Amino acid sequence: MAGLRRLVLDVLKPHEPDNVFLALKLSEVRNVEGVNLSLSEIDQNTETLKITIVGNEMNFDEIKQVIEDLGAVIHSVDEIVAGKTLVESVKTEQD
Amino acid sequence: MAGLRRLVLDVLKPHEPDNVFLALKLSEVRNVEGVNLSLSEIDQNTETLKITIVGNEMNFDEIKQVIEDLGAVIHSVDEIVAGKTLVESVKTEQD
Amino acid sequence: MAGLRRLVLDVLKPHEPDNVFLALKLSEVRNVEGVNLSLSEIDQNTETLKITIVGNEMNFDEIKQVIEDLGAVIHSVDEIVAGKTLVESVKTEQD
Amino acid sequence: MAGLRRLVLDVLKPHEPDNVFLALKLSEVRNVEGVNLSLSEIDQNTETLKITIVGNEMNFDEIKQVIEDLGAVIHSVDEIVAGKTLVESVKTEQD
Amino acid sequence: MAGLRRLVLDVLKPHEPDNVFLALKLSEVRNVEGVNLSLSEIDQNTETLKITIVGNEMNFDEIKQVIEDLGAVIHSVDEIVAGKTLVESVKTEQD
Amino acid sequence: MAGLRRLVLDVLKPHEPDNVFLALKLSEVRNVEGVNLSLSEIDQNTETLKITIVGNEMNFDEIKQVIEDLGAVIHSVDEIVAGKTLVESVKTEQD
Amino acid sequence: MAGLRRLVLDVLKPHEPDNVFLALKLSEVRNVEGVNLSLSEIDQNTETLKITIVGNEMNFDEIKQVIEDLGAVIHSVDEIVAGKTLVESVKTEQD
Repeated sequence: MAGLRRLVLDVLKPHEPDNVFLALKLSEVRNVEGVNLSLSEIDQNTETLKITIVGNEMNFDEIKQVIEDLGAVIHSVDEIVAGKTLVESVKTEQD
Repeated sequence: MAGLRRLVLDVLKPHEPDNVFLALKLSEVRNVEGVNLSLSEIDQNTETLKITIVGNEMNFDEIKQVIEDLGAVIHSVDEIVAGKTLVESVKTEQD
Repeated sequence: MAGLRRLVLDVLKPHEPDNVFLALKLSEVRNVEGVNLSLSEIDQNTETLKITIVGNEMNFDEIKQVIEDLGAVIHSVDEIVAGKTLVESVKTEQD
Repeated sequence: MAGLRRLVLDVLKPHEPDNVFLALKLSEVRNVEGVNLSLSEIDQNTETLKITIVGNEMNFDEIKQVIEDLGAVIHSVDEIVAGKTLVESVKTEQD
Repeated sequence: MAGLRRLVLDVLKPHEPDNVFLALKLSEVRNVEGVNLSLSEIDQNTETLKITIVGNEMNFDEIKQVIEDLGAVIHSVDEIVAGKTLVESVKTEQD
Repeated sequence: MAGLRRLVLDVLKPHEPDNVFLALKLSEVRNVEGVNLSLSEIDQNTETLKITIVGNEMNFDEIKQVIEDLGAVIHSVDEIVAGKTLVESVKTEQD
Repeated sequence: MAGLRRLVLDVLKPHEPDNVFLALKLSEVRNVEGVNLSLSEIDQNTETLKITIVGNEMNFDEIKQVIEDLGAVIHSVDEIVAGKTLVESVKTEQD
């Protein structure tokens, strides 16, 4: 296990195609093991999604391509986990 | 294990047939392993439900059909989990 | 394991018979494995209870009958869990 | 394992005999496996205690007797757990 | 395992001897397995401590003696756990 | 296992190169086992990141060099974990 | 396992030498198994640190010496854990 292990993306997407289709598409990308797609906001024409993607040696550009092919755009990459061990962010005294 | 692994649905439903019947019906859909139906709100004629459905290679349309056959409607799909691994949404610094 | 696996009921009950008696009675219903009876509110003549019942292939009507035989009434069915796997409700971005 | 498995009692008690003595006495009642006695409030003449009692096939009247023999009184029975499985109360959308 | 299993004490103590010495002394009392001494408050002449003591068949008077020998006093006994099983206090609907 | 086991860094970075590149670079540093890079803030020209790095006998200067080679700067070292056992910070009565 | 098992110290320290150096130094003290050094506050000339130290039969004076040799001072000892079992502080009804 190494390379890109987990991504949390903030994604802006049109209503169609639907989110079930997008989640399944992303789950079939090379080296992706699982996808969690959560609906953050629904507006008249678009939806804001929080997408958590887990895998091993994942390729960011391939993931980005699938999202953009469906007319959506990555608004920000909120978390990136890489390496042999899947590391969680740690709450410190500063938080 | 792959495909559609978990759905969280916001559903609007008439009082009849009752929610025990709906939960049992959904639990008998092909590839569904378990259903959690929680009552969010009760109004004079309708009830708002939060339905969490877990399984493997589940078929969204078959689930939707069962819900609509009982006179209810999916108001929104709040979470979709797909792939070999069942991935939870991750809290990030943005949350 | 399948069918009705867990119920959370909001129940309105007279002070007598007491809640220990009701909890024991419910725990002896066919296919019921355990009961948690929590006191939500006490009024002059009645008590509001939150009753969590866990089992396998439980029969809702038999449970309802026991409650009503003791002079109580199911005010609402707040949660229903059904199927092979006991599924918890999932917090989503909408919550 | 069955019958009465756990009780949470709200108890009003005089300062004497002390709470260590009461906790030990309750832990020696037939079928009681463990007791947690927490001090909720201290007033000039009395103390309010929250007592959690765990066991198997426990007898409520025997427990009540021990408490009353030491001059205390059960103010309310806040939780009762019965049956083969020890069931926790479940947070629902209504909470 | 039985008898007195855990105590949580609110203790008022002069600055000397120091708390490391008190914690070590308490950890050496017969049947005591471990001690957690947390500093709640520091005033000009005294310190308020929360002391959690875990063991099996512990003797309350022996523990009290060690505390008093070092010039400190038990302000209140906030929790007592007794019996074969170490039972935690349970949050109920009343909380 | 010993030496430097975990670091939590507050890092200020230009938008380019992107954070996926930085996370992968850090995950390839000698003795680093995993990296969690979380986006705290995005401004017009810079991004504030919270980077959690886990490993064994890690070398702080090598990690610092990778960060600075990509034009970023360590704003503060918020947590340092060292030694055979990976120790979490403990909440005390003072918190 | 016995004696001093865990300490949580509130430490006031000059900026130099840096905290990585202090954490490593503490992790090398006799019978210390791990150290967590968290940055609480940074002022112009000093830093306030929360240091959690875990081990077995640790010697408080040796730990104190290392801290003072680097120009820092123990402001308060917020938690002390001693004995065969590592005991956590318990939340009670008083909290």
